Amino acid sequence: MATDNNAPIRFPNLPPKGPDGDLLLAAERAKATFDVKELSKIMYTEEYLHKMDKVLDVLENDPAFDKSDRYHYSRPEKMAASLWKDKRLIELTKEHNWDQQDVDIANFLYDMSTPFTLHYQMFIPTLKNQTTDEQKKLFLEPALKHHIIGCYAQTELGHGSNVQGLETTATYINETNEFEIHSPSLTASKWWIGGLGRAANHAIVMARLILNGKDFGPHPFCVQIRSLEDHTPLPGVTVGDLGPKFGFNSVDNGFIMFDKYRVPHVSFLAKYSQVKVGSGEYVKPPNAKLSYGTMVWVRANIVLSVRMAIARAATVAVRYSAVRKQFVDAANPRKWDNAVIETPVLDYTMQQYRLLPAIASAYACYFTGRDMMRLYELNQSEMAKGNFGLLADLHASSSGLKSLTTTMAASTIEDMRRACGGHGYSMFSGLGMFYQDYLPNVTWEGDNYILTQQTARYLLKTYRNVVAGKAVASEYNFTINYLTQYLENPNAKCPATTGTDLLNPELILAAFGFRAAYGIAKTAELIDNKGQSWNSMLVEINRISRAHCQYMLVRTFIVSLQNDERLAKPENRNLLQVLRSLASLFALYTIEQELGEFVTSGYLNSDQAAMLKQQVIALLEEIRPNSVALVDAFALPDYYLNSALGRYDGKVYQEYTRQAENEPLNKKLVVDGYDQFIKPLVHDGLKNGAGAQAAKL
Amino acid sequence: MATDNNAPIRFPNLPPKGPDGDLLLAAERAKATFDVKELSKIMYTEEYLHKMDKVLDVLENDPAFDKSDRYHYSRPEKMAASLWKDKRLIELTKEHNWDQQDVDIANFLYDMSTPFTLHYQMFIPTLKNQTTDEQKKLFLEPALKHHIIGCYAQTELGHGSNVQGLETTATYINETNEFEIHSPSLTASKWWIGGLGRAANHAIVMARLILNGKDFGPHPFCVQIRSLEDHTPLPGVTVGDLGPKFGFNSVDNGFIMFDKYRVPHVSFLAKYSQVKVGSGEYVKPPNAKLSYGTMVWVRANIVLSVRMAIARAATVAVRYSAVRKQFVDAANPRKWDNAVIETPVLDYTMQQYRLLPAIASAYACYFTGRDMMRLYELNQSEMAKGNFGLLADLHASSSGLKSLTTTMAASTIEDMRRACGGHGYSMFSGLGMFYQDYLPNVTWEGDNYILTQQTARYLLKTYRNVVAGKAVASEYNFTINYLTQYLENPNAKCPATTGTDLLNPELILAAFGFRAAYGIAKTAELIDNKGQSWNSMLVEINRISRAHCQYMLVRTFIVSLQNDERLAKPENRNLLQVLRSLASLFALYTIEQELGEFVTSGYLNSDQAAMLKQQVIALLEEIRPNSVALVDAFALPDYYLNSALGRYDGKVYQEYTRQAENEPLNKKLVVDGYDQFIKPLVHDGLKNGAGAQAAKL
Repeated sequence: MATDNNAPIRFPNLPPKGPDGDLLLAAERAKATFDVKELSKIMYTEEYLHKMDKVLDVLENDPAFDKSDRYHYSRPEKMAASLWKDKRLIELTKEHNWDQQDVDIANFLYDMSTPFTLHYQMFIPTLKNQTTDEQKKLFLEPALKHHIIGCYAQTELGHGSNVQGLETTATYINETNEFEIHSPSLTASKWWIGGLGRAANHAIVMARLILNGKDFGPHPFCVQIRSLEDHTPLPGVTVGDLGPKFGFNSVDNGFIMFDKYRVPHVSFLAKYSQVKVGSGEYVKPPNAKLSYGTMVWVRANIVLSVRMAIARAATVAVRYSAVRKQFVDAANPRKWDNAVIETPVLDYTMQQYRLLPAIASAYACYFTGRDMMRLYELNQSEMAKGNFGLLADLHASSSGLKSLTTTMAASTIEDMRRACGGHGYSMFSGLGMFYQDYLPNVTWEGDNYILTQQTARYLLKTYRNVVAGKAVASEYNFTINYLTQYLENPNAKCPATTGTDLLNPELILAAFGFRAAYGIAKTAELIDNKGQSWNSMLVEINRISRAHCQYMLVRTFIVSLQNDERLAKPENRNLLQVLRSLASLFALYTIEQELGEFVTSGYLNSDQAAMLKQQVIALLEEIRPNSVALVDAFALPDYYLNSALGRYDGKVYQEYTRQAENEPLNKKLVVDGYDQFIKPLVHDGLKNGAGAQAAKL
Repeated sequence: MATDNNAPIRFPNLPPKGPDGDLLLAAERAKATFDVKELSKIMYTEEYLHKMDKVLDVLENDPAFDKSDRYHYSRPEKMAASLWKDKRLIELTKEHNWDQQDVDIANFLYDMSTPFTLHYQMFIPTLKNQTTDEQKKLFLEPALKHHIIGCYAQTELGHGSNVQGLETTATYINETNEFEIHSPSLTASKWWIGGLGRAANHAIVMARLILNGKDFGPHPFCVQIRSLEDHTPLPGVTVGDLGPKFGFNSVDNGFIMFDKYRVPHVSFLAKYSQVKVGSGEYVKPPNAKLSYGTMVWVRANIVLSVRMAIARAATVAVRYSAVRKQFVDAANPRKWDNAVIETPVLDYTMQQYRLLPAIASAYACYFTGRDMMRLYELNQSEMAKGNFGLLADLHASSSGLKSLTTTMAASTIEDMRRACGGHGYSMFSGLGMFYQDYLPNVTWEGDNYILTQQTARYLLKTYRNVVAGKAVASEYNFTINYLTQYLENPNAKCPATTGTDLLNPELILAAFGFRAAYGIAKTAELIDNKGQSWNSMLVEINRISRAHCQYMLVRTFIVSLQNDERLAKPENRNLLQVLRSLASLFALYTIEQELGEFVTSGYLNSDQAAMLKQQVIALLEEIRPNSVALVDAFALPDYYLNSALGRYDGKVYQEYTRQAENEPLNKKLVVDGYDQFIKPLVHDGLKNGAGAQAAKL
């Protein structure tokens, strides 16, 4: 028999068993009690959704933005695809006259960081914020035109969180008016720098400023590292890609070491501090308190992006769980066209217990992120008036919220992947690479464990102030409020006597406030009165930050629903009701996860704990009919999800098998290596008759 | 300047800052209070350790077993390397006359599943257990000689956990004495089958046996699927690789669909049930209760392998945490040669709280796995005497323990990866691919959520028996014991009044027993007396299985230390003390994680909860000096760990940078794609002068 070894493998044209996914999802959507489009508009605005449609249409028809081979790429293929996308996006932006939001949407939809990502996210913003006019002309203008490509080199092999411990030096040479950048040890190598490994020709380098023998600590320099003629590394520079990572392999995270590398005086970014030419005298920067405001903005954006991450994972898992059927639930058999079918896994309480709190947490992060944006604006205008009263609380909460919510997101993505059962393990689920790429969020922009120390320091300080009567309650400072309430009655008990009592927003907030205050008070007691060291208390410190930030999430979710004008409209009554149920679920599920703290504080008793568990199950049942509608409202297009399991149309098995057909290994009927590694074994059998015997069967 | 674009990138020959890793680890090892080698011998036996050295020496010197490019491989490269390894292992086994244990060690050390893995793990064992003598000659003998290569095809696209729902049919054709294997729908496609995608020429196929129009449910068939001559798929078969996965990409997990594919009567594996030739009459199998014993053996091995997985992750994280320094702890500055150095992260309580319970859980799994093996043997000999009294408890516990411990392992691996900070994200950490490859353990051999239902069913049944006075307490059935104790005093309280009281083994076991019994009793109450459906109770069902299995883990750990003869020797006194502390830590840390359940049951009060937290911190401090010694005792060679961060010698930064040098992207000074995607942008700037200005700096 003559065989074509290049014949592609194709599945027979058969339907899946039972009602197909599109019918199952249509049935789910018919159950929704609210207007999905209205909720999307509230979250994104109609204008944004239009923009997304417009950009999506361009990307889906541009080969540089094609995602169909993404899960098959090797590392070099990922790099090549990324550079192609980077160049093409610049062209598309011009062709379509896109504004910054359009470009942001394109990057969001493409959903893969690239070598130029840090050029936009760190290099250009740093040049905008930290340069003189001369430096803007020299560095920022060419950067905006992509005449130079940059990155941001801070972290070193030996130093991440401890920025003050960075080793790279920049020594001013008074005689020549130059800086000499130098890496004194192996651990001084810059490390993790996105875009540096292969693409960038410039870098912002954080180096210890040494003037006349004195060390002024890390300062930023803008340094050329590769030739603009032929892209080869400049002499004195050792630069490269740092190798494969758990995810993010489309980015050339790199290392760089400097061997007494000379750069001109103008390389020192001099907007704030300055170095006087010739004398090397240091001119101090003005007070930088205002920059804390920016950090709040960055972290508000992180919380909003957590909402997207959880929404994405939940969209895939919820839709798939409505299509995936397994076992017949004998006590409550599901019927379709009068015949018993296997039960969609979304009908199992355990599955609801995994999926619906995830949906709720996505909405919690949406409302909290939105409110942080509002507070950021408010704080900026207050600071402009010289009022710094909001800043400390906002900054502390934003640190802890970054930590709490990104940890939540990482764990939720993985939970949703597992909730897809075995098929969640296929890259075609769209959750595997997503998880891999998401994970750095728990480490960067402040390690999630270390960040909680900042929050806890503020909480403990505020507690001491409240105890000393020095803290002034304010409309915006809820920390002071809940601490004050706790101190007024440290033996308070939760008044709930029925499960539905637990749905009362005031009661929920009181419980979260009491639990946070209790932890803060006990920790302060141990440190201040029992002589416990900060180090020995790090576990509790982490807990009080989490307790405070869970209070913030729950509070903002509840209060936003009370105050939102659009949700108050009569036509949105059903929608408001669904969101209220989600807020209750988020709150009660969170209490259940942290039950130990709520009960040991003496606030909740065992009977209330049992009622709470039942109430969570009741909320699952109530929200269940709207599950698919609630993820549809996130309005995440199939192109973005890139998931065979989470498609809007529910044609899961058809898409999954189609993608399997495209596996490059399937392009040949016989695997490479057969002649060398399999044939000798099998043909030995044929020669000796034994295998032949089986073959004849 | 002429540039060689193929010049490799090399780091300058500089040391890392501060005391090097080898010195730091030597200092850690000097602090150990017990004999590391003795502990290794107790865990593995001296003979096993010798075998490991012997096999390791062969593998480290064989190019087919080289791991240095593993983290760089593309999917096709992984497949090629795997097939090479498969063939080479067969040769090495002959060359060195290795026995099965040697081969197992080789596979363990190589640490990457391959296309032949399922040939050994499922195809051959199935042929051994389920065939007639004729079939052994026909299939097993050639399989043992690798004249045929097989796989095990059970799971389908639409059916995993629900085996009874499999769709593939095998219809007996009375006239021709053949079976016709057929896939009636798309979801009937066999899916996930390791070795099937590209390598196997035979498969065990689970298909519904249809005899004279009657469906007898899934039965096993041994079926040829590819030509032994040229490896092309046989007519009637559509087979291929199912594409990229989150991990396990060295294995060709495949799909197969059959189009009225005829196989001879002998393909039906007929050790147990039979099909009469011509008439198609079904002959029932004998009672298969004995096969439950095998399942216990399989799961005991899973628990032992969980020990290895956690041990491996902890080894990397603990060693790295002794080398990695960050910040100076001002309250307690670490000194080296009289100078203050940054503090090794292992000295931070939060880091200890992440790492040391992981070490403790590895030892817990070791003792539990070992004891399950003992009980397996005991049960086998009891069953041979006709006594089935141990079976139900052992089977139920083993189901829940598989679920609990593999979930623990997956989450611990990820915790340890994150505990390595940013560098944990590099594949060179050795934890990323490990996590990816480990994850299927939470789904296969019984989905971890579904398995807990089996355990809970047994627990609820036992509870009802105890209540009805029908359960007989036994030396081996601890479930009956703790349930009986609970029913005797359902209002019992923990008697601890000081933190050290909480170290008392009896007190710990009573607490775990009470908490498990309380959950079982409340669940039984809701189902039996309040009419709650099984589905509505799935969350609690999962909880009681976990509670029971945590009791088992804690109990076995504690009791094993009390009974072990070698540990009772005077020279092992220090070792025993360290293990006791680990057992206490495991128990108290577990209570702390599940505090809500211990407190709501009324058994522990708030003061005890606070004492418990303090006691956990005290245990961390006590165990801290032995951290490195405790992971060294796992005796995991560097070749196995394949981790730059977890090396025995502590030369972390040297190895990490050496591996980065080997990144294939670094083999060229200028990245592929430069000419197409970067040069046009930058040269545009050079032409227009702006970039040139920056270039001259």
